[in-house]
Amino acid sequence: MRVLLTGGAGFIGSHLCDRLLADGHRVVVIDNLVTGQIRNLAHLAGRDDFLFLRHDVSNFIFVPGEVDAVLHFASPASPNPRSPFGYPQLPIPTLKVGALGTHHTLGVARAQGARYLLASTSEIYGDPQVHPQSESYVGHVDPIGPRSVYDEAKRFAEAMTMAYHRYHGLDTRIARIFNTYGPRMRSDDGRAVPNFLTQALAGEPLTVYGTGDQTRSFCYVDDLVDGLVRLLYAEGSDVHGPVNLGNPEEMTVLALAQRINRLTGNRAPIRFDPAEPHDPQQRQPDITRARDLLGWGPTTDLETGLNRTLEYFRSLR
Amino acid sequence: MRVLLTGGAGFIGSHLCDRLLADGHRVVVIDNLVTGQIRNLAHLAGRDDFLFLRHDVSNFIFVPGEVDAVLHFASPASPNPRSPFGYPQLPIPTLKVGALGTHHTLGVARAQGARYLLASTSEIYGDPQVHPQSESYVGHVDPIGPRSVYDEAKRFAEAMTMAYHRYHGLDTRIARIFNTYGPRMRSDDGRAVPNFLTQALAGEPLTVYGTGDQTRSFCYVDDLVDGLVRLLYAEGSDVHGPVNLGNPEEMTVLALAQRINRLTGNRAPIRFDPAEPHDPQQRQPDITRARDLLGWGPTTDLETGLNRTLEYFRSLR
Repeated sequence: MRVLLTGGAGFIGSHLCDRLLADGHRVVVIDNLVTGQIRNLAHLAGRDDFLFLRHDVSNFIFVPGEVDAVLHFASPASPNPRSPFGYPQLPIPTLKVGALGTHHTLGVARAQGARYLLASTSEIYGDPQVHPQSESYVGHVDPIGPRSVYDEAKRFAEAMTMAYHRYHGLDTRIARIFNTYGPRMRSDDGRAVPNFLTQALAGEPLTVYGTGDQTRSFCYVDDLVDGLVRLLYAEGSDVHGPVNLGNPEEMTVLALAQRINRLTGNRAPIRFDPAEPHDPQQRQPDITRARDLLGWGPTTDLETGLNRTLEYFRSLR
Repeated sequence: MRVLLTGGAGFIGSHLCDRLLADGHRVVVIDNLVTGQIRNLAHLAGRDDFLFLRHDVSNFIFVPGEVDAVLHFASPASPNPRSPFGYPQLPIPTLKVGALGTHHTLGVARAQGARYLLASTSEIYGDPQVHPQSESYVGHVDPIGPRSVYDEAKRFAEAMTMAYHRYHGLDTRIARIFNTYGPRMRSDDGRAVPNFLTQALAGEPLTVYGTGDQTRSFCYVDDLVDGLVRLLYAEGSDVHGPVNLGNPEEMTVLALAQRINRLTGNRAPIRFDPAEPHDPQQRQPDITRARDLLGWGPTTDLETGLNRTLEYFRSLR
């Protein structure tokens, strides 16, 4: 296949790009490098089966040549309001890439008769009132809340993707991606894992927001990418509805901090800062559908995943 | 003021246009006439203070001259899947006008330093689980459900409007419009009031979907338009959050049918057809905020409103 991958210079996108190339596909990446990093793709420079185009998919798209699959992964994705790479600092670009970018990429897929995969998110569930979240849960999102620039953009992207499937017969898939971690995360995007690892490597206190009792479910990026390609390759009439991809194993943010201190031998105490407003207390995927439809589940244990990620952050220093 | 009004050939848009002209403003209407009707504006032809441009606001917008206010009312709005003018038959145009149309009109407002008013909808509450709905209720919408092409487009439009207010300082307002009725509704858009009136005038049985126990709150269009201009003219820091506009007086669909039969002297029996899937059982505005902020509430009783609407439908025959 020749695959068009938007956001391919990002954390998840670049791993997905590597996997698609390893599976024998040709890949065209489009990325405007607003949150993505070209170094994530540097090892691919010069390959015949890889093309990088620096472009904003919220503008029009022109792709030279034929395309068999379009994967729309471009978007700011960190909720941290203090990071310059979080969507609270990039509200209009986030809204645009979710709506205009989705419209443009669906247009390419339709024109080319290509398969389409939308990177959606657990954020469409908002601050959920049901645990764990299955795909039938409609979510709890405030359309004018501070996180709505991301949440509503992705909800809109899902609605438009389903409309192209239902009314144009486009062969679409929607992955609802839960918290993911691994090498190539930005150390400065303000998420828990890179924050903690960066602080631990510097021997500084790990900053926990709120009590640390809020829980998260962390999926290692290789596991996630395996789920994504399984969804992309899957056939049948039941592949078009959204599929949760994430790790159902829940842990508190405080337990994660303690684990990372043990792993790195960091002896600095944990620092508690005021909680982020609108930070969900709990989010945990129900992955029954992914197991049944794709035979997929995470296989990398936290120790292994954290060690690989730690190695990456060490290499950056 | 010189006002740019998208969707000005539609049911609500054309009444709003009349009111703005009566208030001494100049009005530029943009409408692609997909669901709007040029006859709603025919009485304005030749006026110096009125300009009509047939154009799709989901494409770019060019507006000749200066604009002081932008009012975005363009969208299919009937949920009826059997009507060619309902959004289920116009899914992609509905998604586009809610996202691309909102983006373009916000861009005009920003470039011109104009005030902006978004026509949002009670549909952003979805199938609500709280009654009545106040503006703080975040709603219950399935992002991939059959109504999501409208609901998610409007939720996205609200998110983008608030982002332009918060990050570009644009002077924005959001009206969440509940069920409205009156002259210039399409007789063929599949909503309860025009359906019943058209059937009653033909002496046919009125078709009720389901048991008729589902409730609705119907606001007469003159009342609604009064609320809209009050919101447009209002000043202060608290005008930017969404404002419900509708009639809190609830009635069952069956009671409405019986009322219309009495009013028209129609003696045909009421016919019960299977319920529409995803039809909300109940929707009722809490208009406390509109009362407090705008001193607004509906004043037209149902008898008066129905008689005026009946007169309009009679004139069409």
